[in-house]
Amino acid sequence: MTRPIVPVEWRGDAIDILDQRALPFEERHLSCRTVDEVCDAIRTLAVRGAPLLGIVAAYAIALEAVSWNGDEGVADRLRLAGDALRATRPTAVNIAWAVDRMLKVAEAERSEAPERVRSLLVRQARSIEEEDARACEAIGAFGAELVPEEANVLTHCNTGMLCTGGIGTAQGVIYAAHQAGKRIHVWVDETRPVWQGARLTAWELGRLEIPRTLIADGAAASLMASGRVDLVITGADRIAADGSAANKIETYGLAVLAHHHGIPFVIAAPTSTIDLDSETGADIAIEERDGAEVSAPAGRPVAEPGTPVANPAFDVTPPELISAIVTERGVVEKPYPSRLRTATEARGA
Amino acid sequence: MTRPIVPVEWRGDAIDILDQRALPFEERHLSCRTVDEVCDAIRTLAVRGAPLLGIVAAYAIALEAVSWNGDEGVADRLRLAGDALRATRPTAVNIAWAVDRMLKVAEAERSEAPERVRSLLVRQARSIEEEDARACEAIGAFGAELVPEEANVLTHCNTGMLCTGGIGTAQGVIYAAHQAGKRIHVWVDETRPVWQGARLTAWELGRLEIPRTLIADGAAASLMASGRVDLVITGADRIAADGSAANKIETYGLAVLAHHHGIPFVIAAPTSTIDLDSETGADIAIEERDGAEVSAPAGRPVAEPGTPVANPAFDVTPPELISAIVTERGVVEKPYPSRLRTATEARGA
Repeated sequence: MTRPIVPVEWRGDAIDILDQRALPFEERHLSCRTVDEVCDAIRTLAVRGAPLLGIVAAYAIALEAVSWNGDEGVADRLRLAGDALRATRPTAVNIAWAVDRMLKVAEAERSEAPERVRSLLVRQARSIEEEDARACEAIGAFGAELVPEEANVLTHCNTGMLCTGGIGTAQGVIYAAHQAGKRIHVWVDETRPVWQGARLTAWELGRLEIPRTLIADGAAASLMASGRVDLVITGADRIAADGSAANKIETYGLAVLAHHHGIPFVIAAPTSTIDLDSETGADIAIEERDGAEVSAPAGRPVAEPGTPVANPAFDVTPPELISAIVTERGVVEKPYPSRLRTATEARGA
Repeated sequence: MTRPIVPVEWRGDAIDILDQRALPFEERHLSCRTVDEVCDAIRTLAVRGAPLLGIVAAYAIALEAVSWNGDEGVADRLRLAGDALRATRPTAVNIAWAVDRMLKVAEAERSEAPERVRSLLVRQARSIEEEDARACEAIGAFGAELVPEEANVLTHCNTGMLCTGGIGTAQGVIYAAHQAGKRIHVWVDETRPVWQGARLTAWELGRLEIPRTLIADGAAASLMASGRVDLVITGADRIAADGSAANKIETYGLAVLAHHHGIPFVIAAPTSTIDLDSETGADIAIEERDGAEVSAPAGRPVAEPGTPVANPAFDVTPPELISAIVTERGVVEKPYPSRLRTATEARGA
């Protein structure tokens, strides 16, 4: 599939980031020349989405290596950069996964000349991006098998070209099913509080001319009750060893609703999202974001100033509510613990 | 309980309406001098909430009678006014209920002098308001018994002083429990797309100094999963004979979630909300509102212009998911059909 949207591009001495905060109204780009600038772009959601966060973190390590003058110890500099990147967003495991891969290369090549280390790190970051693109293609192909010939598919948040190195995860499945000629209509959850669904997913689907209808998150339940949802599919920010999946807040609610209505609830994510060190969902840190995202969206207050707010950015769906997990290694079904381990061990190092 | 907020006031030749669209930032008032102006205030949500809509519809009929010059047939004029009011919002039954009561008075007194008919209609509208205030007190007292001594209560939309003639329905229960010395903390659903929770409920609770925390609607599920919700209580816009309750979109989702987590889900509403002519939830018309409420909240686009939107304003919760219905005649439990009939027949005519 052609990929009309490129959210991150390596420029040799900078990372070009499509600023997702301005979408869908403006295609504004940021040019990040330091790890600090990248961290800032991640924290403020200019760049987002678990797989893309892994890619941009890898390029940020490459950027740090490029600015290395060869004098000081590169290992320390890259480790500090990795720590800063890891601290930006605690729930998505892909940042830590990509940083670890980059630091392993630096470690293995520490005795090499600076120029060689730099070039190997840039090459590794490119590999991470290209692998993700291939993973998306595979996820799309495997996942499309789960989509009925004619289907109303409900999705939450944004899991497409804007947040991966390829066609996306959950949205990649939708795109692949659409391209295969299945008649798909997508219910797009607006995805409060940051509106990734309203702003990004509805726009992406529109560019690909896939029929879609935007809804308030709270409308999903009655659509399910009236038989107008055949499949719910979302991405994930971290999948624990037992199959619990952390994803954008409200995903767990959708999983409970799908279960209640006998509708399949599917997660689509690359194996880089699987964290075998998190045994269960209880081991996954949930990021609490600024309450102003809820009380004053886009800087415009909807609640009285001073109103106390809780704003957990993610929730955790337990394995029993997940019908299947689509990875680039295939569709993983229950029992998840052994099968996720197998899929993870088979992934590229 | 004192009532620091008065959403509607009869002025003799006008209805003063606290414009809820401007809250919580500005206490702006509209002075409606014609039924058309009242209909417009209802449609645009300047005035809202099922019980208050009944009250304002009753005053609108009185307003029409006051402007009657005694020449033409008053019955026709009032019937037309009633039709216009009924057509404003199809789901809340309280408008039709109040209009019917007003027209019955006009019908019974049709041979009286205009001055006498006017005064009887104003008196009837006042009665409807005062009965609603008393109903709220009774709902609060009955409902408070269902609230644990120490409780995290989750509520949706706005069901307090801003939408009744008294202390409110679901929020009336919360206020009564708080006044009785119970230690209550309220999770306030923001209530997309019109933010009645963020704008109105959080503000009302703040004025009454009741601890509250605003959340995105999608955060309710994970709060329930982590044991931080002891009770869910909402109002209703129409309750069918079988106990199905139509209420603000997302209420049904909350009921499913509460059921899944073993949390009581309670509806609080006056018997004027019970519509025995609707046998089941399938008989309740669901208002579809302008998609711009979702895609461009408060006139500010969050989705690309032209994005298709579905915006059902209400959903229907089936009786099996409702733990109890608190009315001014007491707490109604299952089986609802016979018990709702009894409660309804006992209500003031």
